[in-house]
Amino acid sequence: MNTRMIRYLLSIILLIEAALLLPPLLVAWIYGESIAPFLLTIGILLLISVPPVLFKPYNTRIYAKDGFVCVASAWLLMSLFGALPFVFSGAIPNFISAFFETASGLTTTGASILTEIESLPRGILFWRSFTHWIGGMGVLVFMLAILPLAGGQTMHLMRAEVPGPTKGKLVPKMKDSAMILYGIYIALTLILAVILLICGQPLYHALVNAFATAGTGGFSVLNNSIAGYNSPIVEWVIAVFMLLFGINFNLYYFMLIGHFKEIRKNEELRVFLSIVFLSTFAISVNTIKLYNNLGDCIRTAFFQVTTIISTAGFATTDFDLWPSFSKTLLVFLMLIGSCAGSTAGGLKLSRVMLIFKSTIREIRHLLRPRSVNIVRMDGVPVQDDIVRSAVGYLALYVMMLICTVFLISFDGYSFETNFTAAIACLNNIGPGLKEVGPTGNFAGYSLLSQFLLALSMILGRLEIIPMLVLLSPDTWKKMFGQKESAKIRRLQRIRRFASSDSPKKRIHK
Amino acid sequence: MNTRMIRYLLSIILLIEAALLLPPLLVAWIYGESIAPFLLTIGILLLISVPPVLFKPYNTRIYAKDGFVCVASAWLLMSLFGALPFVFSGAIPNFISAFFETASGLTTTGASILTEIESLPRGILFWRSFTHWIGGMGVLVFMLAILPLAGGQTMHLMRAEVPGPTKGKLVPKMKDSAMILYGIYIALTLILAVILLICGQPLYHALVNAFATAGTGGFSVLNNSIAGYNSPIVEWVIAVFMLLFGINFNLYYFMLIGHFKEIRKNEELRVFLSIVFLSTFAISVNTIKLYNNLGDCIRTAFFQVTTIISTAGFATTDFDLWPSFSKTLLVFLMLIGSCAGSTAGGLKLSRVMLIFKSTIREIRHLLRPRSVNIVRMDGVPVQDDIVRSAVGYLALYVMMLICTVFLISFDGYSFETNFTAAIACLNNIGPGLKEVGPTGNFAGYSLLSQFLLALSMILGRLEIIPMLVLLSPDTWKKMFGQKESAKIRRLQRIRRFASSDSPKKRIHK
Repeated sequence: MNTRMIRYLLSIILLIEAALLLPPLLVAWIYGESIAPFLLTIGILLLISVPPVLFKPYNTRIYAKDGFVCVASAWLLMSLFGALPFVFSGAIPNFISAFFETASGLTTTGASILTEIESLPRGILFWRSFTHWIGGMGVLVFMLAILPLAGGQTMHLMRAEVPGPTKGKLVPKMKDSAMILYGIYIALTLILAVILLICGQPLYHALVNAFATAGTGGFSVLNNSIAGYNSPIVEWVIAVFMLLFGINFNLYYFMLIGHFKEIRKNEELRVFLSIVFLSTFAISVNTIKLYNNLGDCIRTAFFQVTTIISTAGFATTDFDLWPSFSKTLLVFLMLIGSCAGSTAGGLKLSRVMLIFKSTIREIRHLLRPRSVNIVRMDGVPVQDDIVRSAVGYLALYVMMLICTVFLISFDGYSFETNFTAAIACLNNIGPGLKEVGPTGNFAGYSLLSQFLLALSMILGRLEIIPMLVLLSPDTWKKMFGQKESAKIRRLQRIRRFASSDSPKKRIHK
Repeated sequence: MNTRMIRYLLSIILLIEAALLLPPLLVAWIYGESIAPFLLTIGILLLISVPPVLFKPYNTRIYAKDGFVCVASAWLLMSLFGALPFVFSGAIPNFISAFFETASGLTTTGASILTEIESLPRGILFWRSFTHWIGGMGVLVFMLAILPLAGGQTMHLMRAEVPGPTKGKLVPKMKDSAMILYGIYIALTLILAVILLICGQPLYHALVNAFATAGTGGFSVLNNSIAGYNSPIVEWVIAVFMLLFGINFNLYYFMLIGHFKEIRKNEELRVFLSIVFLSTFAISVNTIKLYNNLGDCIRTAFFQVTTIISTAGFATTDFDLWPSFSKTLLVFLMLIGSCAGSTAGGLKLSRVMLIFKSTIREIRHLLRPRSVNIVRMDGVPVQDDIVRSAVGYLALYVMMLICTVFLISFDGYSFETNFTAAIACLNNIGPGLKEVGPTGNFAGYSLLSQFLLALSMILGRLEIIPMLVLLSPDTWKKMFGQKESAKIRRLQRIRRFASSDSPKKRIHK
């Protein structure tokens, strides 16, 4: 492992985080609030990150494992340091709760431990929503887009931060791919902000809602979330954009360069849109009795479906009061998530489709052992190891889900609460059912559970593997063991030198 | 597909079921109850099954698919006809509810729709518990043990009824394997019955409890299940035997022939016992406050752990009132189930271990792409397709679980109730949490949900594939399409005959 290079890259990440704290600082200054929390955090970040950045290591080569360790550490560090403004401003006095809130922001989960939002300083709330936007596309992708790094290592970083069964590179150079993706991301966010302005929202609200929608996060600056605006048109706009941000960004690129054929033959998109519209229809029929008119019913159903499947987690109604069927459908949508290559979380639709197709293949194989069955996606055969890793991911995911439910069950909440809380965090959604439903929040969990749920958010955002690699004892042995082994080697050399036998002689023995 | 042979085998199964109705008939006669319900059912079964049995088809060859169809149909038919005594006696007037109860019995689930048990006729209750014992080892295994069938087809039948990643054959001949397994099963059941007699239970109670424990079923003849006996020694005996019936029966065979090495190196057994004792310890610590003395606490914890992990589903306490951690642990144990090759349900421990090991292998492969990683079990490398099918089964299982939860969610129960009810039925356990908890029952579900849950029990008992094959349109087309295609062929022959061209001429054209 190249520990020096990892340290260098992490310092750059923290430097970028210091820069990202400037917009909320500006907002705080404009509204005449205290800018001290931001200045203090920026100061700490600069102190830590500037010295290592000045010494770029000679050996810049990194391997798959380094990529995982680097990305997982980056997300942990960003969440830890990003929590400081909340603590310094007194908005969230407890550091662990602040860590939960920041991890929830960066991973675009949107689960909150805050019970009263509107009374908080605007600068702090801007930072809270801004973390969604930062985490939506990924900080390392951003770093790749602006940093002059050699080809080899960028691949490992990008693969660790933007996983899932996607085709990956849009253009031959990874750096260019990162720039294209960030370009599309910024453009779509701006369009949404402008539309929200046109709908009559003030600039501040238009921006924070655009950030939270673009990152499919779900933090809001109102206690009642999007329902607080009481504006059907705003609900429709945000619902449609949540849908748009749940689509694979590669397709927007294909649209821009005129490759409409690629879009037309994309199976994932077809299935995604079908699920959204069928679910909206089913929930509308199931909940029609609860609403006065059909328009309200369809709008509310469509909003909840897009907010859950895109893993944004905004709320316009308390779906915990819905009939059991609609709630079950939402839990099911929670599990799937949106398209791979979007800003949304979850298992990812294309992975679910691969698992489904490979299961059908296994059954076919059982019935006709000698027949050859190939899993196809978009009409093209899928490599066997991609299918295997998709199914393997499901197993890993189920294990992590069970572990999380277990560890938070000591707090005494019901199974329904713990189970949906674990899904909501692991899939980066936000609200679950019961105590952590749309009107509830995570404040009732103990600090230990908050810490574990924050870790599970990062686990889910990075699709488990990078965090597991970071937390494995093997990695730590290697990271801190290098000096140890050097020491041992030195000792051996001394001993050899002290002994009368020459190395040659020993070989002849 | 060999439809004739399937029909022949199914008739034999129904004939066997008629014979199996004699013991409860005898019990009803001894207690002076009406024997009409049993006589009537036996009459119907004989009427249907005797004529086809007389004509054994010439072609007795069956294939993998026929095996699946035959086993799935056999279980469906046995549940349908086995429900008749309940209906005829008036114990369960509704046929669908009676079908639920019989399927629950045969699949050794033990979920009940009865709210008042003790007032029912003893013969009927004997039949209800006896179905557990019949279903525990499998009816087709029994048929294989007594019927003179050629080698080829028995394999397909046995594989369909006793699935899971086991080594399968104990001895070269499938028939001998079936006889050995049934011998061990009968011996263990008798030992348990004798011990229960020694513990002071009357013969009737000793028998029905032995049946329900041996099949890891869970039906009881008391309203309060095993708690109704108020006897700590009976609880200990049944708990220990549930554990014994959750162990792979092959190991008992190895013990009998003195191959202790096979038992010592069996990983599944080690993990199984570790899980049972660790869970008992964890739950004891977690629930100690609820009990007056340590003995009660440990006994109750051990009983619930063995009843859940062996998927028996007896009750000695209302674990729905336990702390959240213990409940979550039980739900987790529900999912795993016991060893492959036992009478228990669930995912099966060896499958869970294979999934776990293959997931670790995938992570290793990701970190060191060029390293060779082999999944080992009992120290021996496992073939890749066995690993793949274990992971594939998990995917299939998750899909079926989601479908079941969905379909029963229309009844309006909470997610917790529906989710645990679906697991309890699919894994053949019996009780879940909340409304279907140890003190609740399934009577509140609509008839449609009862029917679907009954199907999911058979689905779970046969490990999904056979039922999916039976329900696939392709199978039905083939089953009823043979006559169709014969008709078409006849028509073609007539047309050919009518046309002036001779077949030879046409070939030359």
